[in-house]
Amino acid sequence: MYKAPVDEIAFTLKHVAGLSKAIDEGRLGDLSDDLVDAILSEAGRFASDEVAPLAEIGDRQGARLVDGKVIVPDGWADLYRQWTEGGWNALVAPEEFGGQALPHMLNVAALEMWNSGSMAFALGPTLTMGASEALAAHGSAALKEKFLHKMVSGEWTASMNLTEPHAGSDLGVMKSRAERRDDGTYRIFGQKIFITWGEHEVTDNIVHLVLARLPDAPAGTRGISLFLVPKFLVNDDGSLGPRNDLHCHSLEHKLGIHGSPTCTMIYGDGKFGGEPGAIGYLVGEENKGLACMFTMMNNARLAVGMQGVAICEAATQKAVDYAKERTQGKAPGWTGSGMSPIIEHPDVARMLVTMKALTQGSRAICYSCAHAIDMAHHTEGADAAFWQERSALLTPIAKSFATDAGVDVASLGIQVHGGMGFIEETGAARYLRDARIAPIYEGTNGIQAIDLVTRKLPLANGDHVRGFIAELKAIADQVRASNLDGLGATAERLSASLADLEEATEWMLARLAEGDAATALSGATPYQRLFGLALTGCYLAKGGLADEENGRDTRIALCRFAAENLIAETAALKDRVINGAASLTAARVLFA
Amino acid sequence: MYKAPVDEIAFTLKHVAGLSKAIDEGRLGDLSDDLVDAILSEAGRFASDEVAPLAEIGDRQGARLVDGKVIVPDGWADLYRQWTEGGWNALVAPEEFGGQALPHMLNVAALEMWNSGSMAFALGPTLTMGASEALAAHGSAALKEKFLHKMVSGEWTASMNLTEPHAGSDLGVMKSRAERRDDGTYRIFGQKIFITWGEHEVTDNIVHLVLARLPDAPAGTRGISLFLVPKFLVNDDGSLGPRNDLHCHSLEHKLGIHGSPTCTMIYGDGKFGGEPGAIGYLVGEENKGLACMFTMMNNARLAVGMQGVAICEAATQKAVDYAKERTQGKAPGWTGSGMSPIIEHPDVARMLVTMKALTQGSRAICYSCAHAIDMAHHTEGADAAFWQERSALLTPIAKSFATDAGVDVASLGIQVHGGMGFIEETGAARYLRDARIAPIYEGTNGIQAIDLVTRKLPLANGDHVRGFIAELKAIADQVRASNLDGLGATAERLSASLADLEEATEWMLARLAEGDAATALSGATPYQRLFGLALTGCYLAKGGLADEENGRDTRIALCRFAAENLIAETAALKDRVINGAASLTAARVLFA
Repeated sequence: MYKAPVDEIAFTLKHVAGLSKAIDEGRLGDLSDDLVDAILSEAGRFASDEVAPLAEIGDRQGARLVDGKVIVPDGWADLYRQWTEGGWNALVAPEEFGGQALPHMLNVAALEMWNSGSMAFALGPTLTMGASEALAAHGSAALKEKFLHKMVSGEWTASMNLTEPHAGSDLGVMKSRAERRDDGTYRIFGQKIFITWGEHEVTDNIVHLVLARLPDAPAGTRGISLFLVPKFLVNDDGSLGPRNDLHCHSLEHKLGIHGSPTCTMIYGDGKFGGEPGAIGYLVGEENKGLACMFTMMNNARLAVGMQGVAICEAATQKAVDYAKERTQGKAPGWTGSGMSPIIEHPDVARMLVTMKALTQGSRAICYSCAHAIDMAHHTEGADAAFWQERSALLTPIAKSFATDAGVDVASLGIQVHGGMGFIEETGAARYLRDARIAPIYEGTNGIQAIDLVTRKLPLANGDHVRGFIAELKAIADQVRASNLDGLGATAERLSASLADLEEATEWMLARLAEGDAATALSGATPYQRLFGLALTGCYLAKGGLADEENGRDTRIALCRFAAENLIAETAALKDRVINGAASLTAARVLFA
Repeated sequence: MYKAPVDEIAFTLKHVAGLSKAIDEGRLGDLSDDLVDAILSEAGRFASDEVAPLAEIGDRQGARLVDGKVIVPDGWADLYRQWTEGGWNALVAPEEFGGQALPHMLNVAALEMWNSGSMAFALGPTLTMGASEALAAHGSAALKEKFLHKMVSGEWTASMNLTEPHAGSDLGVMKSRAERRDDGTYRIFGQKIFITWGEHEVTDNIVHLVLARLPDAPAGTRGISLFLVPKFLVNDDGSLGPRNDLHCHSLEHKLGIHGSPTCTMIYGDGKFGGEPGAIGYLVGEENKGLACMFTMMNNARLAVGMQGVAICEAATQKAVDYAKERTQGKAPGWTGSGMSPIIEHPDVARMLVTMKALTQGSRAICYSCAHAIDMAHHTEGADAAFWQERSALLTPIAKSFATDAGVDVASLGIQVHGGMGFIEETGAARYLRDARIAPIYEGTNGIQAIDLVTRKLPLANGDHVRGFIAELKAIADQVRASNLDGLGATAERLSASLADLEEATEWMLARLAEGDAATALSGATPYQRLFGLALTGCYLAKGGLADEENGRDTRIALCRFAAENLIAETAALKDRVINGAASLTAARVLFA
């Protein structure tokens, strides 16, 4: 069973991602290392002892639509109530609405633990947090007063309604429509699909944020508005009013995250009688709905990245436990009696260390991204702009690298288990099934790569990414200067990977300067992975250098493994970026 | 829906894997290119029109244990009967027992198509073919006369009973026991797990081949004997006698291949009354059971490799179809009206071409392995020894590379589908669920790597693999000399990969010569992948050079893509082989 790695999480936050430095510099108010430890420790206890034990039943039962009601798995409603009572829904929200206004870094660390416990369970609150953030940033005072307190506490959940059957990655073509009413409200009509936790009985009300198009809206993404559409209308005294004209038509039958209801939502078909049209309230300005979404998009993408980290951690723990207990054959050099634990076989050890390195690399990248988000909030002027750029640059890498790692690590976890890995009761297969959605939703990893190359590399005319690479080179220099035992060829390997990253980056910037997006985009995915691998190497090394205590040996060993076994792939990735486009273009003949 | 790529299969068999040359040289009797085409065409029709349409229901219903009977999905029993009536179970079996004695190459190609149609369905017959081969090679004349005709026709299926809870990869520790009886029969007692198609009602009888240990057997793998244990005893006139003392205790709940019953079998617990003990007949000699298994192991492993190829092909077809139809966004350079088909986006095109290259590379490797098996059967003396070595060398690469490709390609196929890929009804997710077992069973891919390095590289003191690499270099030379348009940097890329392969191979041979198995095995998996990637590049190029007709442009384009985008990874793999062991060993501190 999953046990939250609280010490590892705390170390990575503090010493790799920059939390301790930010605290020392007084950026984070009266937050202290001790308070951080206390919060993480309690979150870890809840995730390990309360969430994780209910993951398997959630997967097996799944969410079900019974007599028009969406039923979540046994025990999940109580679990959710306990979780909100612990205040976990409110970590980062503004104090004005009952939040604790803690740094995103802490919330991200907690999200990792909830998702390791059960990704299907943690997904619902993740959406509520995102919706709360959008409403806090763009909602009117009245709307916030009426809805935000209960969204922050978790008394009501929220959902995000973007996707339609013909509008997934491209929201510009959505058809859901909104009509203005004289009283300042709107009526919403349309069908939305893939709506996570769109309907359930766990809370008394559900707040839907819905993108729709006004009759006179411009075509495309500039004609989309954002509406708050509650399941039950809310009276001025806060009590619940009539049922609104929206309902869940059906649930999806999915590969994974079975406990999370994925709903097709119908707005405004008059199902409950009366004049058709779901009553909605505008959030932000008309036709600026996508901009409202974008304010929360970095955080939402990072939250999905945390799902990748979470699966990596949980799958690795499970595989290591199994490999220590299961005996089979005799590994080379094995001198014990009987069969060796399979962890002694070099091939199994290679899988497990690879899993560890991808887990820790993904975690460090994601936490570093959260750190940049926090710093952007807690600095001003040029500093804030710098950290805003840093978070923007890191977001697509965090989302894509961690979610790809989630799939790869979960798949390796199955392999370590041998035949038992294919048996559902073992639990290793669930990690792969759950993990597989994360590279897709909240912007596919291919879209992250487009974002990275076309919008993030050009920040500050390319100087932001150049400055970041210079920071990373300084880590390699520190490794070189450290003379620490056990680092092997880490310094040279890091330098080589960073040279690959630099060359590929300059090549990308040159293509963009030429206006040759097609060629640049042909290499966007390998470039994104290259960046993630180089970061993994550097952040693992940073951890090794920072650790003065007992864990240093293991950190050094892990960073050396990554340097000498994993990151050499950057050379091939750079080659693919720079030399791969012509043959990709030529290969279009295959589909003619 | 899957449509068997009969032309592609025929081309690869004939012009890449060597079938036409073998026919021209008269190695294969009166087999002609036309007969090959006719057989493939009819197999393709059956796989596309009869098998594939029943795959989804097989996945959804799964095999079920109802009132002690194992029930296969609706329509599967009829499908199986049609399939055997077509003679498909008997393609390679000896004519003496009703087989057609056709080359393995044809059976392997047909297996690909059955598995593309439904891997869960095709798995049962695959086991029957393996058992038939073992019985043909090692059974007594009486035993063969009584059982083999019906196993060859498919009137009875067969199962292979090796695994026990504590004996998976390491069969030496198995506990199932056999007792001698005065009449020359044996009584079998024990529990076997993961028994594919171990019980069902599709045929009147099931022939179990069971490994067990005699009371006075030596410890370990040298004390294992092989027994034929029928579900129903068979009278001398061929009619069915009493039920034997064996039964299916339970079915596994698996990630994939749901339609295939995976049984826990109990032998000899007296469930049906009378003296306990399942009546078994010795196959081969006492204590030589594993040797009997080894005669069929190459073919069985290759058959699993074909499952990887099969999933690659089916998943790729599905993804290409979707990517041509689904529109979303505007790809760079898109001049059509409205949104582009997503296949126009470079990232999607990269995924699809990668899928095509891995499919075709895996297919070529597996067919080449089958060709070597056929040539070993149809040559004599030194030639036969040479082809025996070639098939031995290629088997672990074929099994591992193709099954890893199956998982990777199926996962990419989900990604191409975006959110729809995660919805089970789409069908893309099933390919990943089914594919995931293939790197595990019939010897995990880690065990294939151990086999490749420690048993196959040393063949002919290393000269076999050296000769093979020389053959591959000749392909690179032909590419260089061809002056064909469109090959780009293929020649240089192939040469570089083959240099990596050669260097890694010599390094491995040197470690083995030193007796340093631990260091060699630390790099066995990356070495195995390196070999597979280099072969993919060479075989795709061989196909491009061989094609004089319409498909040449696409073959050249595909081989160039593989050369310029995929096989550069061999450099990092070589590095991992040669330089990776020390840091892997050091990383053991992580698990201390």
